[in-house]
Amino acid sequence: MIRKDIKALTAYHVPDSSGKIKLDAMENPFPLPDTLKASWLQRLGEVELNRYPDADMHGLREKIAARDGLNADQVLLGNGSDEIIQMLLIAADAGACASPSPTFVMYDLISRWFKRPVATIPLEKDFSLNADKFLQLCAREKATIAFLACPNNPTGNLWSESTIRKIATGFRGLLVIDEAYLPFADRTHTDLIAPNVLVLRTYSKLGWAGLRLGYLLGDAKTISALNKIRLPYNINSLTQASADFFLDHFAVFEKQAKEICSEREKVSKALASMDGIEVFPSQANFLLLRINNSDEIFEQLKQKGILIKNLNSHGGLLKDCLRITIGSKEENGALLSALKEILA
Amino acid sequence: MIRKDIKALTAYHVPDSSGKIKLDAMENPFPLPDTLKASWLQRLGEVELNRYPDADMHGLREKIAARDGLNADQVLLGNGSDEIIQMLLIAADAGACASPSPTFVMYDLISRWFKRPVATIPLEKDFSLNADKFLQLCAREKATIAFLACPNNPTGNLWSESTIRKIATGFRGLLVIDEAYLPFADRTHTDLIAPNVLVLRTYSKLGWAGLRLGYLLGDAKTISALNKIRLPYNINSLTQASADFFLDHFAVFEKQAKEICSEREKVSKALASMDGIEVFPSQANFLLLRINNSDEIFEQLKQKGILIKNLNSHGGLLKDCLRITIGSKEENGALLSALKEILA
Repeated sequence: MIRKDIKALTAYHVPDSSGKIKLDAMENPFPLPDTLKASWLQRLGEVELNRYPDADMHGLREKIAARDGLNADQVLLGNGSDEIIQMLLIAADAGACASPSPTFVMYDLISRWFKRPVATIPLEKDFSLNADKFLQLCAREKATIAFLACPNNPTGNLWSESTIRKIATGFRGLLVIDEAYLPFADRTHTDLIAPNVLVLRTYSKLGWAGLRLGYLLGDAKTISALNKIRLPYNINSLTQASADFFLDHFAVFEKQAKEICSEREKVSKALASMDGIEVFPSQANFLLLRINNSDEIFEQLKQKGILIKNLNSHGGLLKDCLRITIGSKEENGALLSALKEILA
Repeated sequence: MIRKDIKALTAYHVPDSSGKIKLDAMENPFPLPDTLKASWLQRLGEVELNRYPDADMHGLREKIAARDGLNADQVLLGNGSDEIIQMLLIAADAGACASPSPTFVMYDLISRWFKRPVATIPLEKDFSLNADKFLQLCAREKATIAFLACPNNPTGNLWSESTIRKIATGFRGLLVIDEAYLPFADRTHTDLIAPNVLVLRTYSKLGWAGLRLGYLLGDAKTISALNKIRLPYNINSLTQASADFFLDHFAVFEKQAKEICSEREKVSKALASMDGIEVFPSQANFLLLRINNSDEIFEQLKQKGILIKNLNSHGGLLKDCLRITIGSKEENGALLSALKEILA
């Protein structure tokens, strides 16, 4: 009764992290500041839980849009950017979904749920993206939708402005520029928004991962078409109220992001100074590094109570690669000490 | 770039209800009791918002399952039952989606998003369902999935036990028994659970509509297969914490549901005593009634500040039908007075 290809899938696995220093999931390490907590909870106490959430969310969309000089009708909200990726993959015309490889796994994973062909080309050895090759792939595989994670996950780098621009102007299908890691990057791509070019964002890396709120910025007509396949009450009332409140205190979270960037540079230098570790440039809240015996080092870190992400099994460009989320100063210190011990 | 059939859709419309007595959306009229509020907010204050939600939710699933004598692996959680309906329509083998008509609109609506053919047969004049006709429809249209809303929305009646049982044993595809209105009904159908028979529920009508939490009960193997296409963090942390807390105080909400049932009987009698109104039996938290000039009466109620649901435009069995959600004693009183004035 259930599709064979779905039964053959493996459910997305989230490793057990209980009691560990959690540097595996690109979470912001800072808890909600006490200065905000009481007023936030007061706001939640005003939510009418017995009523359905606001289905239209005009006010919230307006507040989000305003930060980028856009209008409410240029914003679509999702239960995390995952849900928006799903909507896009439902709505795009029949054809392949194109992306470079490696990149965020959900583009491929969700494409398969809808039996949408997946077309990928490998990144260059330095994780750069060749725009011509990418456009050729899209043409050859008849791609109708493409995802570019800018900065890219799990590599952490941000492709050059000219590369993104070339693809944005050359691709005829829906181009989704996924800016999940924008808070830690030098550049946004909202200037490229066009009827077929969209910018995807999330608040997850900014300290609100528990809320599940992603958003898509685009041309009003495109957003309106996508809104037709949005489940009407997809954002619950508590998330709506929280986001509305936190957006009024956005500087708090931006400051945290800056601290994370500054920690990233320190950790990067410290790692690069260790023998046998190659650290890649990052504009995200994580660092990708290459190291011999990566599996063993991953396991030893776990035994020392530190959970990071082991990408070695992906092979190819990610052979011997580990991904480390930037945590708090203390957490990063613990990671560096543990690594030093292991490598000694 | 976006599918033409999607562009041709109309987005799900939620009417503006600001300042009105809201008897249109099957919401529980009771706000969260003050006795629970402080402890609930304290619990929310403990949520680590900067972390992703628990993806597995074993504890919450176990707590939900236990209420029906089931295990955690027999429960799938969704961002409202809407999301679960979507998962089911993605996962079921290719073939039509069968349902009686009229019923909950989302089965058909979401089927169309996935280009899944829709097969319906009309209910009988008294809104009963003929199991043989339904099974014939499923066979003729090669249905691989079917939805039975028990009790049915918007008619409010609960089809006979023998009807449901006949379909559950005779249908070879996935049968989803949607018990959204169980808190107001005489009977559940968990005894019919089988590898292809599932029971869908939601907490929305029980006072937690703002949380968006639906759940599916079924055979562990079927639930596990469906879980493979669940977006990993589909239930946000605040909803998880709230549901966990409210489940420990479930009697509060069950008592509210009983009060609603008792109000329903009073309102039903009062309506039936009015000239020109036909009220149908209901095991839900709403009443369907038939009345001449339904459009005009709907508008006059709206002008008097009372929002109900006008189903007249659906035609067929729903010609001249209005659906009234049972509200608080005061709200129901206001509705009855307004109707009396209008009909006088």
